[in-house]
Amino acid sequence: MSDRLRIGMDIGGTKTEAVAIDAAGGVVATALLPTPPGVEPVLATAEQAIAELAAQTGRGVREFASVGVGIPGQVDRASGEVRLAYNIGIEHLALAARLGERTGLPVALDNDVNAAALGAAHLMGLDGTVSYLNIGTGLAEGLVIDGALQRGAHGITGEIGHFAIDPLGRQCLCGQLGCLETAASGAALRNFWPAGGEHPGRTLLPAVDAGDAEAQAAFEHLVRGSATAIRLLVLLLDPHTVVIGGGLRLLGDRLFDAIRGRLAEWGAQSPFIAELGIAERIRLLSEGSPAAAVGAALAGADRPGEAAADRPGEPVAGRAGTDAHRRGDAP
Amino acid sequence: MSDRLRIGMDIGGTKTEAVAIDAAGGVVATALLPTPPGVEPVLATAEQAIAELAAQTGRGVREFASVGVGIPGQVDRASGEVRLAYNIGIEHLALAARLGERTGLPVALDNDVNAAALGAAHLMGLDGTVSYLNIGTGLAEGLVIDGALQRGAHGITGEIGHFAIDPLGRQCLCGQLGCLETAASGAALRNFWPAGGEHPGRTLLPAVDAGDAEAQAAFEHLVRGSATAIRLLVLLLDPHTVVIGGGLRLLGDRLFDAIRGRLAEWGAQSPFIAELGIAERIRLLSEGSPAAAVGAALAGADRPGEAAADRPGEPVAGRAGTDAHRRGDAP
Repeated sequence: MSDRLRIGMDIGGTKTEAVAIDAAGGVVATALLPTPPGVEPVLATAEQAIAELAAQTGRGVREFASVGVGIPGQVDRASGEVRLAYNIGIEHLALAARLGERTGLPVALDNDVNAAALGAAHLMGLDGTVSYLNIGTGLAEGLVIDGALQRGAHGITGEIGHFAIDPLGRQCLCGQLGCLETAASGAALRNFWPAGGEHPGRTLLPAVDAGDAEAQAAFEHLVRGSATAIRLLVLLLDPHTVVIGGGLRLLGDRLFDAIRGRLAEWGAQSPFIAELGIAERIRLLSEGSPAAAVGAALAGADRPGEAAADRPGEPVAGRAGTDAHRRGDAP
Repeated sequence: MSDRLRIGMDIGGTKTEAVAIDAAGGVVATALLPTPPGVEPVLATAEQAIAELAAQTGRGVREFASVGVGIPGQVDRASGEVRLAYNIGIEHLALAARLGERTGLPVALDNDVNAAALGAAHLMGLDGTVSYLNIGTGLAEGLVIDGALQRGAHGITGEIGHFAIDPLGRQCLCGQLGCLETAASGAALRNFWPAGGEHPGRTLLPAVDAGDAEAQAAFEHLVRGSATAIRLLVLLLDPHTVVIGGGLRLLGDRLFDAIRGRLAEWGAQSPFIAELGIAERIRLLSEGSPAAAVGAALAGADRPGEAAADRPGEPVAGRAGTDAHRRGDAP
């Protein structure tokens, strides 16, 4: 099995990115497709991405070892189902079973942030404790310790965005007031700066520089909320590295420098905070990094709670034994 | 080596508790001594506790496999030094080396809260992710995942007490304002309720019941701060179990029930919080549990960053090979 490629897929609100990785975790093929919303379009897109990876690598679809999918929404790893993934138009989808039927491959799901955390630690070569802070539409964290993704008791770790910190803050969709996510997220940018439109991350910095007061306030909330989240992660987890990823990492060094500046201010007020060296632990995920797809591929190899015989298209004896036969599918 | 007993010791502000555990982690002997403050008294007490365990188990001191010490203050596991342990009168002590010289045993140190976390998970038979919240003089956390203590990058995990949450809150000794510890800790009780004296945990509930307004406010702060800390731990770590320990666990079911009540209020405001089932994850450490001493013994077995030859009294070839010789020391 170790010579078979594993597939990882990041199904996001606008695009689906798929990779094939080899036994060493190196990316050998990549496919990028738009994600049309809804159950059937999402499934068709995933199947098409796998077909593209097969064509690129000159193999049959059934020659891949496994498919790991990182996806937003509530992910039940044991059942392979995803719920409430509204930004891809999915209320409920038994994704592992449905995609398994279509491809004949074993499919495992993970939360997209967890997948990105695992992929970022792998691609950036980070050892020890790695806390990955995803500043996207929402705010969430993934934790990797010594290369192992930490999923907690129910697979709902890293909900730092819903830590309600400001009783005078804004109403969050979760029902609480003043969650960190109401300050530091794409949704928060839209709330504080409605003029920024649907993708405020792209237009924010020019507006800040042009003196737009609402844009400046939105940026300030983002910086304060992000720095607060990072301070919290370091206090609690003492990570070797905090990686910043997610859609808003496109704000790049401007965001990074502003966060470090805020941490330096807090350090000036508290020797205890200064000694933690928080700013020195932060790294920015490279723009365009396929972290979530790669992490999904890595996580897809250790599938949860099912005997192999229960998986669609995955006969117990077939995984290693039918490679030669399956290679007949290759173009 | 597996038939040799391991020693664990919890050096606290008022007492030093030591245990000897067998290979299965069962406690076979216990010693309890007052802790006189200062470097030499602390060392003499530790040595005396070990001698008592030797006498109880009918062995020579050098027949024990290892000594693990849980101690407050800044603990450097690699060097075996402790700094700024003010409540036992220690500014700096090379405890591992000094106690190793006195006993001929390999000595490893851990933060007292980390030791208690490991011991609580072991004694309570808890699997998976266990977050241990220590509500004592300060507020701190220890994390055990699948039986392994998580020490982070620099051994300073779990500093949840110094997460500054309330910009209008009280000044913390760390230099920040409104740290969780300024609401939920023994020090906070003394601040909010000076009339409670040096050990307010013992007198608080009768004063609350008698209608003392300051005592009631102090209790309310304690409940809100503790519940906030627990909510945060569950959001971030998704633990199977949150164990409450520390000196203030002596408030028992009154504290436990009040925390659960506060969590229920928050759940009523937010379906997201309600679904986390936070209250159902909490357990109270038994009163008088030797968690820190037992955890120190367990942690003492995996010593950090030193070759065995560098350890005082621990020749490389001597660990298993000199047992027969050492038994000659037994009375």
